[in-house]
Amino acid sequence: MANSKVNISKRAQELPASPIRKLVPLADEVKKKGIKVYHLNIGQPDVPSPKEFFEAVKTYPKEVLEYGHSKGDLRLLKAVSAYFAKNNISVEPEEIMITTGGSEAIIFAMLAVAGAGDEIMVFEPFYTNYNSFAIITGVHLVPLPTKPEEGYHLPAIEKIEEKISPKTKAIFLCNPNNPTGTVFTKKELEGLANLCKKYNLFFLSDEVYREFVYEGEHISLMHLEGLEEQAVLLDSFSKRFSLCGARIGCIVSKNKKIMEVALKLGQARLCSPTLEQHGVLAALKSGDTFFAQIREEFKKRRDVTYAELMKIPGAVCVRPSGAFYIMAKLPVPDIEDFASWMLTDFSLDGETTMIAPGPGFYATSGLGKSEARIAYVLNTSDLKKAMRILAKGIEVYSVQKVKV
Amino acid sequence: MANSKVNISKRAQELPASPIRKLVPLADEVKKKGIKVYHLNIGQPDVPSPKEFFEAVKTYPKEVLEYGHSKGDLRLLKAVSAYFAKNNISVEPEEIMITTGGSEAIIFAMLAVAGAGDEIMVFEPFYTNYNSFAIITGVHLVPLPTKPEEGYHLPAIEKIEEKISPKTKAIFLCNPNNPTGTVFTKKELEGLANLCKKYNLFFLSDEVYREFVYEGEHISLMHLEGLEEQAVLLDSFSKRFSLCGARIGCIVSKNKKIMEVALKLGQARLCSPTLEQHGVLAALKSGDTFFAQIREEFKKRRDVTYAELMKIPGAVCVRPSGAFYIMAKLPVPDIEDFASWMLTDFSLDGETTMIAPGPGFYATSGLGKSEARIAYVLNTSDLKKAMRILAKGIEVYSVQKVKV
Repeated sequence: MANSKVNISKRAQELPASPIRKLVPLADEVKKKGIKVYHLNIGQPDVPSPKEFFEAVKTYPKEVLEYGHSKGDLRLLKAVSAYFAKNNISVEPEEIMITTGGSEAIIFAMLAVAGAGDEIMVFEPFYTNYNSFAIITGVHLVPLPTKPEEGYHLPAIEKIEEKISPKTKAIFLCNPNNPTGTVFTKKELEGLANLCKKYNLFFLSDEVYREFVYEGEHISLMHLEGLEEQAVLLDSFSKRFSLCGARIGCIVSKNKKIMEVALKLGQARLCSPTLEQHGVLAALKSGDTFFAQIREEFKKRRDVTYAELMKIPGAVCVRPSGAFYIMAKLPVPDIEDFASWMLTDFSLDGETTMIAPGPGFYATSGLGKSEARIAYVLNTSDLKKAMRILAKGIEVYSVQKVKV
Repeated sequence: MANSKVNISKRAQELPASPIRKLVPLADEVKKKGIKVYHLNIGQPDVPSPKEFFEAVKTYPKEVLEYGHSKGDLRLLKAVSAYFAKNNISVEPEEIMITTGGSEAIIFAMLAVAGAGDEIMVFEPFYTNYNSFAIITGVHLVPLPTKPEEGYHLPAIEKIEEKISPKTKAIFLCNPNNPTGTVFTKKELEGLANLCKKYNLFFLSDEVYREFVYEGEHISLMHLEGLEEQAVLLDSFSKRFSLCGARIGCIVSKNKKIMEVALKLGQARLCSPTLEQHGVLAALKSGDTFFAQIREEFKKRRDVTYAELMKIPGAVCVRPSGAFYIMAKLPVPDIEDFASWMLTDFSLDGETTMIAPGPGFYATSGLGKSEARIAYVLNTSDLKKAMRILAKGIEVYSVQKVKV
């Protein structure tokens, strides 16, 4: 006699399904039919993880896999501090805390800077999971739209300032941006920094793709002057080491109160994965060569993907300079329908392409309906095939939909 | 010119420091002076982790450590279902989701069943981190005190019923209980189940210590009848496999909506650690013998600890039947002061003992001031020494404080 009168919470009902992952069941279905699916929907690079990671894990020296320090393995904190120093970012080990992926760093930062009902300003399209993190933490995201025609760069500073309210606690930027690949300029960053100073706001910056910059220089939040108490850097080792499964990230701030809060939140969940911290420590020691190779490879991939994209009549996109994503406007009126259709109804020589529909990267309802995120995480030959399948798909879909 | 006008959020200011970990800096200090510290403050067993875990990790078959499924490795879900079946708990793989430790399972459950400001009923003393999880999720914990003289068993059902309000969404039990070691009876569980049915509440049960039961039988939430839609089981592999650093737990429910919410929350944080899921899968296959040995060993430890405790004049405690903790009332008026003093001012032959002060395990201010949690996670010889140091410490402390 089961009771069906129990209801899940309202906020739980409001949680969005991930646009990156929600089509996975459709993909699983077509794979069963023998169709090959090119996964341009998810930022899972195919680059082998550093050998040093696996070597370290194989020779883990203890026979009990114990809890680690809540703030992270002390040797890892030192290594991360040294890693930042190489990137011209000066932070002490005590200004860093290891988190369980970049995701946890973002959640901790949101909890630390804003109360339930407080506002954090974001620029859309943004990393889709910020929506879920906002629901989890009760924070209200205030989105400012950016446009494909402008390479998804920031709107004029006056437009941003207009949106600041007494409830605004922070501005949150992802740089290089996921999903757009946009690398923000020094002028853009300084504009935001000035607003943060003027209105006493925190500045949160998600810099997971720091190394993935193909033209120009990456300006970190930590390079901005006079922002020591307000800057909270969020980071992860998943992408730069092709260690997505390792769930090791960090939160960085020179604001002692922020670090105290992060530690208390960290104590509540005990520690980040011990073995994978041990592996990332080894990977960090090997760092530089690995990064350089990755960057070159991804630059080629960006170029191939962009070139193929530009062959699609009606596609709108300014070539992005960073991360491993391209967000583009495609000539389809309903991208959700199109992305599903690519899986359920279309294939070319037994293959099809999976993309992440745009609307999930927006908080404003109705935006992104013709946009998609393409993750160029496959080798160039596969990418070329995947993009041509996408182009052909758009062609066939357009004709079919006109008929109907 | 740093800006000090930025403030952390009010909820962040309210986060408690972990009573288990907040004295760690004091312990680190005395260790530098060459004093040996017996750590009875934290549930970190000294039992070697299963060899199968390390073997599997060494032979990880892929060269990219990829994101896993957000709901967990499918082979692991099947193995966990089989593990539950052996424990007379019938749940399908799709009724299970892997979480990043039991901590995440609890946070997901709180978010799923309650909105911000809603109430969840708990029995104090309770696992201290529930306080932090409540702040993170905005849930209001309604505590019902239990007493050392009664072995921390539940109060009369009428007393519990009195506390149910229109805002109450769930009853949350930890069984066997951390920090008290209490194993709740079938009658107690059925009493709570009836309240859940009468008032349409969810029943959350944290059963991390399921195998650590030394007398009588463990009754799982999942053994209760007619509660399918309301039961949410929270679990972790950390303790039973001595794999605390692996951060692999799970949330289990036959309520499809709960599992949908858990999946969406899981998608937001992408996945649980891939390598450690792979290791736990191997550990689960080896399971039974490992458990049996652990249980026997911990029973001996419980007996030694309890026997030594009972030699302390004025100590109040009913011998607990489960977990690896004993909560006891000790003859000191301010346990926080005493626990610090044991580290900073007391040692016996160059050794001292660290305990977790009681108040952090209560939500009601003023309770637990003479209580402490003792984790019997060391070998019996060390435990005997640690407990005798504790006894001597109480003796010396009492004399000193009377003098002052």
